[in-house]
Amino acid sequence: MEYSKVFSNWRELYKTEWNSYTEHLFVEKIGDGTLPKIAFLTYLKQDYIFLKHFSRAWGLAIVKSDSITEMHTCSKVVHALLSEEINLHIKFCNNEGIPTKELEKTNEMHQNLAYTRFVLDSGYSGDFLDLMAALAPCIFGYGEIGVRLGSSQHSAVYNEWIKTYAGNDYQSLCYEVGELIDNSVTRKLGENYITSGKFQELSLKFKTATLLEKEFWEMADI
Amino acid sequence: MEYSKVFSNWRELYKTEWNSYTEHLFVEKIGDGTLPKIAFLTYLKQDYIFLKHFSRAWGLAIVKSDSITEMHTCSKVVHALLSEEINLHIKFCNNEGIPTKELEKTNEMHQNLAYTRFVLDSGYSGDFLDLMAALAPCIFGYGEIGVRLGSSQHSAVYNEWIKTYAGNDYQSLCYEVGELIDNSVTRKLGENYITSGKFQELSLKFKTATLLEKEFWEMADI
Amino acid sequence: MEYSKVFSNWRELYKTEWNSYTEHLFVEKIGDGTLPKIAFLTYLKQDYIFLKHFSRAWGLAIVKSDSITEMHTCSKVVHALLSEEINLHIKFCNNEGIPTKELEKTNEMHQNLAYTRFVLDSGYSGDFLDLMAALAPCIFGYGEIGVRLGSSQHSAVYNEWIKTYAGNDYQSLCYEVGELIDNSVTRKLGENYITSGKFQELSLKFKTATLLEKEFWEMADI
Amino acid sequence: MEYSKVFSNWRELYKTEWNSYTEHLFVEKIGDGTLPKIAFLTYLKQDYIFLKHFSRAWGLAIVKSDSITEMHTCSKVVHALLSEEINLHIKFCNNEGIPTKELEKTNEMHQNLAYTRFVLDSGYSGDFLDLMAALAPCIFGYGEIGVRLGSSQHSAVYNEWIKTYAGNDYQSLCYEVGELIDNSVTRKLGENYITSGKFQELSLKFKTATLLEKEFWEMADI
Repeated sequence: MEYSKVFSNWRELYKTEWNSYTEHLFVEKIGDGTLPKIAFLTYLKQDYIFLKHFSRAWGLAIVKSDSITEMHTCSKVVHALLSEEINLHIKFCNNEGIPTKELEKTNEMHQNLAYTRFVLDSGYSGDFLDLMAALAPCIFGYGEIGVRLGSSQHSAVYNEWIKTYAGNDYQSLCYEVGELIDNSVTRKLGENYITSGKFQELSLKFKTATLLEKEFWEMADI
Repeated sequence: MEYSKVFSNWRELYKTEWNSYTEHLFVEKIGDGTLPKIAFLTYLKQDYIFLKHFSRAWGLAIVKSDSITEMHTCSKVVHALLSEEINLHIKFCNNEGIPTKELEKTNEMHQNLAYTRFVLDSGYSGDFLDLMAALAPCIFGYGEIGVRLGSSQHSAVYNEWIKTYAGNDYQSLCYEVGELIDNSVTRKLGENYITSGKFQELSLKFKTATLLEKEFWEMADI
Repeated sequence: MEYSKVFSNWRELYKTEWNSYTEHLFVEKIGDGTLPKIAFLTYLKQDYIFLKHFSRAWGLAIVKSDSITEMHTCSKVVHALLSEEINLHIKFCNNEGIPTKELEKTNEMHQNLAYTRFVLDSGYSGDFLDLMAALAPCIFGYGEIGVRLGSSQHSAVYNEWIKTYAGNDYQSLCYEVGELIDNSVTRKLGENYITSGKFQELSLKFKTATLLEKEFWEMADI
Repeated sequence: MEYSKVFSNWRELYKTEWNSYTEHLFVEKIGDGTLPKIAFLTYLKQDYIFLKHFSRAWGLAIVKSDSITEMHTCSKVVHALLSEEINLHIKFCNNEGIPTKELEKTNEMHQNLAYTRFVLDSGYSGDFLDLMAALAPCIFGYGEIGVRLGSSQHSAVYNEWIKTYAGNDYQSLCYEVGELIDNSVTRKLGENYITSGKFQELSLKFKTATLLEKEFWEMADI
């Protein structure tokens, strides 16, 4: 998907890493419904913790915003994560017999911890763009996966999950974040941003976060 | 108002400072309608910038939250500030012939800068409670002022401003933030929190922020 | 070692985790000299990156200090890490034919990243004590390991490494940090700190960092 | 002084603001010895608090550094501030009959608070360069003032203060920080950094910090 010009540059730069994440076996098995339920639940429980820290990172994006427009978008993402995505996880887990209380007690796995704390530190140590570069793979990757699985024939087993990310709400969030990133990059680094040293630093953050996304799929045995 | 037990302790501890802020001549003149329009506009323009940084500080509160419940409340405050309060300021200024563009170009006065950056640093350098202690005077003080002016006879001149802070939406936000603070303080510092050294540190932050609120009224000549 | 009263509480609370870290097979093999050189070099190269981020975390401790005395101690630790420990690593690697340039290009492993970013986020999201709780296992654990290996018969192979942590400079740093933590804990949380909710939060941070130290040894195959 | 190419750009851009700070009446009166001792002591006491927060900001620069070389320089500045400059203030105040304990109890004036918290927030909200832009006016301005007063005929009254900033230690620190900034700016933003949007943001931070320096002189009545 062409959510953003800058994102397209990053995806092109790290094609192999990007595909190892978005076309991971775990993803394919969500699509054809062969992913063991137990693996999906392990993932969902970890992702519940992930979403908490990811929401914190989008909260940090509010702090580091340069304008009220940017703050609005980041605040909207926090709201979507806290209200919609997290509730989807709670509902799905409850349906599978995992009460919210148990969900709360999930032990955070170290791959999970590595990813979220890397994103947070990218924000703390850098500026708004450093944070965006580390946040981008999750937002856009799930958008792409949603569209790819949702627009081709797929099993009904994990349809609700697929629909969430393929749906209009999530997709328009992706475009809004894409515009946010493009505007901030060109405002700060100019139209030829691609040649600047700062952009190379951002790209490395995008790459690391992409690889940490790939490892996220590997927490559950499949 | 008894928005929170902890807040009541702080207000009692720093009664003089609190009253110098909430019963400031500027406030009384809003109530009786004698505040010069020019002074009110100077205040509103500075407050527009204030709200931007104050929203950033509530964004930081999302980052520093210990639970999803806390994150929800803080996210709700960010939304209220960015959407409702800031829009009220824009609307009021527009009505008075100040276009949004001009509002955006307002020079930040140093009293304004001092206050918001103090709040932000309280958060950065401390934990969730240190941030809450610095955020409390603004939230609760405006709540008190709103109720006091709104519930007694007052001039119609600044009625819309008074109604905003006296209104149910703002008041229920105050109670929600009050509960947030009480819960976090007792969870971290116990029921006898008042004797702990950490609480004394928090109290000093509350005091400084209260005095900075008082100085905020004094940016405009009245 | 009794570097600090608070540390002794933490070690007692998480005895199993603590021993799994400080008496790890990797450590024992450093002591008896049977650790393969290649494993030691893998560790040293990762530790070089670790020390960079660990120094950043001690830099953050300067930011979050409450007094000039605290700032002095934290600044001293930064200096010790940047000047002495990192140079030891460079020297050792150079001797083994790894030039500094190659050291600089080491890929950061995810266990390494998980640990340092967890420590940094503990600091960013909490106060001085939250940061100290996450920093403590590294400082005190290496101190203990140094004394234990250094004071019993051990192989000469890794003697220089052992001597560094068993030596007076490092040991007195441990005592100084221990005093820093004890003073700050009792000042903020009182003499009965052990019963406060905040202390329980600190303890969990100590536990997680201890487990991340254990995993650090496991980056190299032995 | 030409401490740095980037600094020379900034000083040129904001010549009026720069001169209003470095050639302030307070400075001139230090030079000719006509500054009332009471004003100088008021300044020194506030500057004592300032140096504490300024050291915190340089601690933050360690956190936000991109390389070990940068970390070394920032750590050296922290050390110089905590050990040398602060001690000079203590000694001077003690000589004038103000014991260290009283110095510790100095009330932080709001101009002081505004300045340091602005610098800290520039760092928290931005990257290494945003922090450097806000730190630059203090470092380089005192360097310039020291050289200007020290190299021309001046009264002996405040000679020790002048000698500190005119001296080799302080001057070489200025050059080292200058190189740090030039290297980081060109690495991130390229040789044509002056045209980038990010550089314009940095320049505005430099300007605000310069104006806050000017106001710092005005805390004491002269």
